[in-house]
Amino acid sequence: MTYCCGILVKDGLVMIADTRTNAGLDNISTFRKLHIFNQPGDRIMAVASAGNLAISQSVLSTLSEGLENPTTGELETLLNAPTMFQAAQRIGRAIRHVNASEGKALEAEDINFDVSFLFGGQIKGAKMRLFMIYPAGNFIECTVDTPYLQIGEHKYGKPVLDRAMHYDVELYEALKTGLISMDSTMRSNIGVGLPIDVLVVRTDVCDADLNHRIEAGEPYFHDLRSRWSAALRAAHQNIPRPPYKKDN
Amino acid sequence: MTYCCGILVKDGLVMIADTRTNAGLDNISTFRKLHIFNQPGDRIMAVASAGNLAISQSVLSTLSEGLENPTTGELETLLNAPTMFQAAQRIGRAIRHVNASEGKALEAEDINFDVSFLFGGQIKGAKMRLFMIYPAGNFIECTVDTPYLQIGEHKYGKPVLDRAMHYDVELYEALKTGLISMDSTMRSNIGVGLPIDVLVVRTDVCDADLNHRIEAGEPYFHDLRSRWSAALRAAHQNIPRPPYKKDN
Repeated sequence: MTYCCGILVKDGLVMIADTRTNAGLDNISTFRKLHIFNQPGDRIMAVASAGNLAISQSVLSTLSEGLENPTTGELETLLNAPTMFQAAQRIGRAIRHVNASEGKALEAEDINFDVSFLFGGQIKGAKMRLFMIYPAGNFIECTVDTPYLQIGEHKYGKPVLDRAMHYDVELYEALKTGLISMDSTMRSNIGVGLPIDVLVVRTDVCDADLNHRIEAGEPYFHDLRSRWSAALRAAHQNIPRPPYKKDN
Repeated sequence: MTYCCGILVKDGLVMIADTRTNAGLDNISTFRKLHIFNQPGDRIMAVASAGNLAISQSVLSTLSEGLENPTTGELETLLNAPTMFQAAQRIGRAIRHVNASEGKALEAEDINFDVSFLFGGQIKGAKMRLFMIYPAGNFIECTVDTPYLQIGEHKYGKPVLDRAMHYDVELYEALKTGLISMDSTMRSNIGVGLPIDVLVVRTDVCDADLNHRIEAGEPYFHDLRSRWSAALRAAHQNIPRPPYKKDN
């Protein structure tokens, strides 16, 4: 399982991904799911992946080697994409390319072609953008009305985002909310786990403001988890009991 | 969509069910999903249903008419079941009976045989019990370690139950937690909605302590929702911002 969340606010972009993978409950490993493509000052892009690890890794390797454009003959990668939109299209094409070569064999083994990506970043002179890319290679873009996108196990971590996230939230407040969302997910699904990779990018800087891995036992995240738990307990206790009477 | 939750604590049983049904997003209705079978002082049983409404209603009608026991010829219903375990088995048999007569035709229309039930209650002289019954007619029973069961859209409402529910919680505290769980679900899934039906049964009474419908605008539930929202907002604000520094 996986949980990744991308948040796009006025001040910039936050991307958060866990690192737990499992091939059955009896085969759990740690793999990085947040991949950063950076030419400081010119462009920064990040891809977070969910779904079948063999597929997502193949898509990323295909993008790193470059996918030949049939018209121009150019090897297309993320780092030479002219715009974020065209870069998202390239991820879509890479997914379709992998599906064309692997899909049939996976289907024969009853394995779904299950993969999805968050793709965020900024190219100098253009807007910061965030996309969610589906297994068919199509995608949607994050807008100001709902300034976040999620892939993987999204339900447990969605309520706190719905309540607290809006476009004007300060960048590190957005990171905090994203971490609470990750905490809620980890508590309810053991398929999502530490360490957590975090990327924070400030608008118009085209470089990472923070590229950090939160390991188990890290004091701030540990404190965030205990405070959130204690506050929820208190919130719960402070609500009065139902006043309903028998057959009321 | 549906959310139903059953909670079994030392003091008794709480069952909560929403009433929203939908055949597509453009066809939303209100149907009771919490059904009570009561012979006050002798037995009280409640069935909450999720899944395909035609199937769950057929199962309940089959149980009300009685399913003939091929060995004894007796018409078996919930009200003449000797034990809660045997009553749960009868629900399972009714599901299989409906599947045998309807399943093929549904499959031809690409409709899943999707139905599940919570079944709780007590027969005089025996224990209060709570079961979750699957589409195949098999079932699990609630135990003290995890004193609740859910059907339908269970994820949004699970975290608060995991944090706050244990076997020694007072009965109306359990109801309160169940209502917070329902609130969390309704906020994140518009397929779950008011009114909410609630049943509270005290251990060894074999009658309803509370059999209540919470309608939209009811003051206590409205207050619970605002208090929970405000407390979550405050909890969130009181957590310090991440102290991480650039490339820390």
